[in-house]
Amino acid sequence: MTTNGAGAAGRDAEKIWSALDSFRIEVPSWGFANTGTRFGKFIQGGAATTTEEKFADASQVNALTGASPTVALHVLWDLPGGKADVPVIQALEKKYGVKSGGINPNLFQDAEYKFGSIANPSAEIRGIALQHLLDSVEIGKALGSKDVSLWIADGSNYPGTQSVRRRIEWMQEVLGKTHAALGPDQRMLVEYKPFEPAFYHTDIADWGMALELARNAGPQAKVLVDTGHHYQGTNIEQIVAWLLQLGQLGGFHFNDRKYADDDLTLGSIDPYQLFRIFHEIVSATSEERKDIAFMIDQSHNLKGKIEAMVQSVLTAQELYAKASLIDQNKLAELQDACRLVEAEECFRTAFWQDVRPVVREWRIARGLPADPLKALAESGYVEKVTRERGSKNARSVSSYA
Amino acid sequence: MTTNGAGAAGRDAEKIWSALDSFRIEVPSWGFANTGTRFGKFIQGGAATTTEEKFADASQVNALTGASPTVALHVLWDLPGGKADVPVIQALEKKYGVKSGGINPNLFQDAEYKFGSIANPSAEIRGIALQHLLDSVEIGKALGSKDVSLWIADGSNYPGTQSVRRRIEWMQEVLGKTHAALGPDQRMLVEYKPFEPAFYHTDIADWGMALELARNAGPQAKVLVDTGHHYQGTNIEQIVAWLLQLGQLGGFHFNDRKYADDDLTLGSIDPYQLFRIFHEIVSATSEERKDIAFMIDQSHNLKGKIEAMVQSVLTAQELYAKASLIDQNKLAELQDACRLVEAEECFRTAFWQDVRPVVREWRIARGLPADPLKALAESGYVEKVTRERGSKNARSVSSYA
Amino acid sequence: MTTNGAGAAGRDAEKIWSALDSFRIEVPSWGFANTGTRFGKFIQGGAATTTEEKFADASQVNALTGASPTVALHVLWDLPGGKADVPVIQALEKKYGVKSGGINPNLFQDAEYKFGSIANPSAEIRGIALQHLLDSVEIGKALGSKDVSLWIADGSNYPGTQSVRRRIEWMQEVLGKTHAALGPDQRMLVEYKPFEPAFYHTDIADWGMALELARNAGPQAKVLVDTGHHYQGTNIEQIVAWLLQLGQLGGFHFNDRKYADDDLTLGSIDPYQLFRIFHEIVSATSEERKDIAFMIDQSHNLKGKIEAMVQSVLTAQELYAKASLIDQNKLAELQDACRLVEAEECFRTAFWQDVRPVVREWRIARGLPADPLKALAESGYVEKVTRERGSKNARSVSSYA
Amino acid sequence: MTTNGAGAAGRDAEKIWSALDSFRIEVPSWGFANTGTRFGKFIQGGAATTTEEKFADASQVNALTGASPTVALHVLWDLPGGKADVPVIQALEKKYGVKSGGINPNLFQDAEYKFGSIANPSAEIRGIALQHLLDSVEIGKALGSKDVSLWIADGSNYPGTQSVRRRIEWMQEVLGKTHAALGPDQRMLVEYKPFEPAFYHTDIADWGMALELARNAGPQAKVLVDTGHHYQGTNIEQIVAWLLQLGQLGGFHFNDRKYADDDLTLGSIDPYQLFRIFHEIVSATSEERKDIAFMIDQSHNLKGKIEAMVQSVLTAQELYAKASLIDQNKLAELQDACRLVEAEECFRTAFWQDVRPVVREWRIARGLPADPLKALAESGYVEKVTRERGSKNARSVSSYA
Repeated sequence: MTTNGAGAAGRDAEKIWSALDSFRIEVPSWGFANTGTRFGKFIQGGAATTTEEKFADASQVNALTGASPTVALHVLWDLPGGKADVPVIQALEKKYGVKSGGINPNLFQDAEYKFGSIANPSAEIRGIALQHLLDSVEIGKALGSKDVSLWIADGSNYPGTQSVRRRIEWMQEVLGKTHAALGPDQRMLVEYKPFEPAFYHTDIADWGMALELARNAGPQAKVLVDTGHHYQGTNIEQIVAWLLQLGQLGGFHFNDRKYADDDLTLGSIDPYQLFRIFHEIVSATSEERKDIAFMIDQSHNLKGKIEAMVQSVLTAQELYAKASLIDQNKLAELQDACRLVEAEECFRTAFWQDVRPVVREWRIARGLPADPLKALAESGYVEKVTRERGSKNARSVSSYA
Repeated sequence: MTTNGAGAAGRDAEKIWSALDSFRIEVPSWGFANTGTRFGKFIQGGAATTTEEKFADASQVNALTGASPTVALHVLWDLPGGKADVPVIQALEKKYGVKSGGINPNLFQDAEYKFGSIANPSAEIRGIALQHLLDSVEIGKALGSKDVSLWIADGSNYPGTQSVRRRIEWMQEVLGKTHAALGPDQRMLVEYKPFEPAFYHTDIADWGMALELARNAGPQAKVLVDTGHHYQGTNIEQIVAWLLQLGQLGGFHFNDRKYADDDLTLGSIDPYQLFRIFHEIVSATSEERKDIAFMIDQSHNLKGKIEAMVQSVLTAQELYAKASLIDQNKLAELQDACRLVEAEECFRTAFWQDVRPVVREWRIARGLPADPLKALAESGYVEKVTRERGSKNARSVSSYA
Repeated sequence: MTTNGAGAAGRDAEKIWSALDSFRIEVPSWGFANTGTRFGKFIQGGAATTTEEKFADASQVNALTGASPTVALHVLWDLPGGKADVPVIQALEKKYGVKSGGINPNLFQDAEYKFGSIANPSAEIRGIALQHLLDSVEIGKALGSKDVSLWIADGSNYPGTQSVRRRIEWMQEVLGKTHAALGPDQRMLVEYKPFEPAFYHTDIADWGMALELARNAGPQAKVLVDTGHHYQGTNIEQIVAWLLQLGQLGGFHFNDRKYADDDLTLGSIDPYQLFRIFHEIVSATSEERKDIAFMIDQSHNLKGKIEAMVQSVLTAQELYAKASLIDQNKLAELQDACRLVEAEECFRTAFWQDVRPVVREWRIARGLPADPLKALAESGYVEKVTRERGSKNARSVSSYA
Repeated sequence: MTTNGAGAAGRDAEKIWSALDSFRIEVPSWGFANTGTRFGKFIQGGAATTTEEKFADASQVNALTGASPTVALHVLWDLPGGKADVPVIQALEKKYGVKSGGINPNLFQDAEYKFGSIANPSAEIRGIALQHLLDSVEIGKALGSKDVSLWIADGSNYPGTQSVRRRIEWMQEVLGKTHAALGPDQRMLVEYKPFEPAFYHTDIADWGMALELARNAGPQAKVLVDTGHHYQGTNIEQIVAWLLQLGQLGGFHFNDRKYADDDLTLGSIDPYQLFRIFHEIVSATSEERKDIAFMIDQSHNLKGKIEAMVQSVLTAQELYAKASLIDQNKLAELQDACRLVEAEECFRTAFWQDVRPVVREWRIARGLPADPLKALAESGYVEKVTRERGSKNARSVSSYA
């Protein structure tokens, strides 16, 4: 057995197995549904249109990868009836063997939120938004979900049209009340994003703003890092390091991008960056690391929905395994001696190592398909759901029409 | 009369009047319809949903500003019946007193274009795209429109998934055939855009690629500059200067943005940039300048549709008037002597000058409302169309749902 | 007298006069010396090479503008003897009638700081850096300067070569000790910068990191915003609003840029952005506003040193005067009613107003030259100092040679 | 022997050996000298200060890697006597066994070029610049160098201070005359760069402008791509593909960066990007590929000079070897069938493959050190030159002092 192998290769294999055994990454229910850009969406016959179909697809991904036993839910889309839909979800959890993960309120789509939700100048609309947040907290309690995950799209499109400062106060009030409703095991994750859909100012634009709001809300509020939500050039792993240092890192929404918030499959554009982020995680203490939520947040406009999700989980596993191979003691020594080239080579030798053969052995040993993408193709699952669901997937149009 | 005023003020007023008398900017039919972001669109009760309503709104903008006598048409949305709809459009032109402007084919929305249109690996789909382009050329001929304006959204989302080079050849073939069908007074404008909706590579990503394709197609093909279609930091006025120098500037799609292609009202984020672009225009020869098409391409998610369009035309007029005030001879002298601070002050003194009082006088003299935004508000037009159209404007949803 | 004028014009003039009477902006001693890029510096015969020459030039700028009575000092360059040089500086203050402003330690130039100063893995080098900071604090006390202004250039150039997290702890320790040495009237301003001269990670990369370090150090530590130290697209005025809201805005280093930290004259690239920043200041309470340090930090590679500095002060005055014209009550009302176009027009009508005639009247009334740039040219000052200093300004070379 | 191994591994090894046997990358003489940022340079005792020392170091890099038999020369620094220094260079070539590569004129450092060189408004200064270019062409002829490599730093720092269009004409004239002087085997490579040291407009800002100027100059002018000279987000491999398609790709200056033109060691920040660029090269025809000059252009401020250069050559070899492993036929098939995930996996499986063991075998077989970085460390070369050269490497200062 590989993990008993002698020497460096054996020790590396042990590290990889250990990393894989501990690695879990949540899939988003909306990642199985048809999505697109403002210019249109290209409908996939096999896309999920019901919550049950989303659970079925998530279950399939977990069966193939063994690494995604939970599915993030979107309140508006997956529990349109609110808390009353909890039993439905619980039945789906039981039927499909995957659990509910993060609860995602939706404060960006309804017409009342045109000028904002928790930062809207209208106290009435802020009240509606607060109620939706409180409902989401209750749903989380009922489902036994740890995290309520807040992406606040509020902002403004033109200079002078809104007061940044009054809106800070309004947000503080709503988030404080939401925090007060949390159960003892619940957390509130505050996400940030520099732009889109707001184009001049976004109320929670960067990690500094998210951190201030989280701290102001209370100790169970943490920051959520979406890897696609940064200005070009931002050193994301440094932000991760700071949040770890401050004890304020709640979790991740993983995806990749080349330009803006493109929601591409993770590691597809800059895999070295994801390796560096994972390095910050694996080099943290186990105490620091234990509550970090790893979630995928992607929108596959062109790739097959399930295929892309499986590919994402596999890529995350491989890059996490690579990061686990870094010799932390040697690296620290070289860093502190400022032996730059040697430190860099120590760091990236782990990136260059081809972990795929060991990952494959681990899969077989854990009763998983050796090649999950191939197994998916051979299973005929996508063809089957396309036949079953295709008729419901009517042709859709651009947000321009 | 102001233009007879003695001294510098009088000469400035003459320049402003002359600039305003010559300035025309086209409005887009789609700018009056409901649009949004991928996260949703906020429906406006008064938004236009029919081509007639779009003509009515464009006519209203022109009545208020005197500067927008043409309206750009979108083939798929405004002439869904293709060439057969030309008589309908002609009737609307007559009824509303505004003419058809640029003809905009749509090669990004239909399901067949999922992997591209004129750069699609499938010869069949490229054929469909070519046919749509040829139809658009015919529509342009029938309507007496000068420009067929091509925005090609083709590209790919992931490294390795498409061949950049084969796609160049495919585009060259289709664009060459399209050019061959142009009438002697027609032009083909090739737009470029670095990203969105394609997120890894866009086939026509910058002005260099657009220029190569335009030249390859033929002498009636020119480059179209959309001010929102550039990487952060790009010096757009320099590109404009190069295209003027090469005789290849076809026209503009004006809008503004802070981050990506945000389609905000022109001059709203960086008015000094638009002033600099206009400077390149007003400092060109009248021969170079005579065929440049000025078009607005904006998408107002939050601002009132007609209000935003009027505001845009006014801002364009004012910035164009400011640019016309630059003392070109003095500026050239200071530039060539490398007297930097003096040259800069000569240049921007025109920007700082408040042209609004003279523009107001010009409006009154030309029989236009002195304050078009106020006149729009007082006219009750928006309230009227909201009453008339509101029931058709059902609530819409996000491209995620 | 204009400020007694009836009606809107009179009220505006009063606002402008009041704004100008209160507006002070500090000039940097290094802004009068030869500087350049890594590719070389183009020596100016009239550039200052001694501290006395820098005081003389600063005095000249203040005489022309009436708005820059203090000059920021750079410890290494202006007080090479450290605290022992304080009497020299005091004599210069007396002789030239301008006072010392911010004290700027230098922790980026000496060979020992190759791998960092306060974040260097070597405890010995951190100790040297701390001593320099403590010396700077003592200099500040002796000169009666309020602010010690810290720009920490520390960082790393390659992934994996340094530990972000250990370096945070090292910085906290040094900054805490520095804060402990502050006198009761002193402040410590912590600047941030995303990149350059460090190219992979900069230890204090954004306002969030600067804020954490300032808070950790103590209550007299505040954040310093350099307008050129942000990623492309960052909404700087929003950061200013947050820092005001949190009571943590220490001051500004003003300059402009199109791409990176280009240190161009303020307002030269995007004047509307500076207007928006000033709007956040003028709309704050007088209590919030009273301790904000306005400083210029520019490096004029091509423009004449003194000419550029005068131009910068004038531009700052004009944009500050414009911002003071915004009708705050009306704006707040329109913002809270989400009347977007009206709010935007209310906001930017102040930007479009040509304040220069009123500023000119104010200058005359205050005994200043009506046209400071013209007065500078006519004074022959630059020619005089060029004759006197020219021989010392030997030709310099690129950092490549 | 590995290359005779059966099956996929053997075929891969053959591809790698073949790639490595053909791969050559030029090192820059200035890469061995002390350099820095505008804030200072940290002197290395072992840095080369004479042309002979640069040849000695280049020779050392080639001895260790077998892949860098030529060294790019900088006329001003390496041939300060101009053509008269050619015999000196020839003697060094003979002594150190490395040949002269690209000839790099310097038009950015001398005081006369403050406002530009070939685009300077002064005809006299343009004449000086032209003469330097003609001298460089003559040096190239005398040394048997193929390429004269032009980086033109010209531009302006402020809007309105220079005429973009007049400067285009001036550049065309000088470049045309330079082209006319080329020998039949010589080429003129035109580099582009968006900003730095010019901060508002750079006269040759992007590949489109470089291409226009190259074409205008004549058929022996080609475009040079410096990988660090692009806006954030630019798809560089697409530009490479276009230049290959147009037959206008002259060569590369390789380096990496996270933000601006940081001149970091190649592949250190985004190795996947360099792999994608190499993919465009290896998938071109051998005819298209044969004249592409691969050059390193880096400036190692912190890393050891020779160590960093060896590391760069090794990284280039490994990424080129990886790119050579892509199954081009299969990839084309999957691309044209729009099987996205499969195409991507086909593409990046080559990236994930660990080629280092095979590269090591190739090195041993070719008589090179198995581990060049280790061999460098063990050779004591750096220690030796530090002893010999250290005294000449006096402490240097910032461009601010």
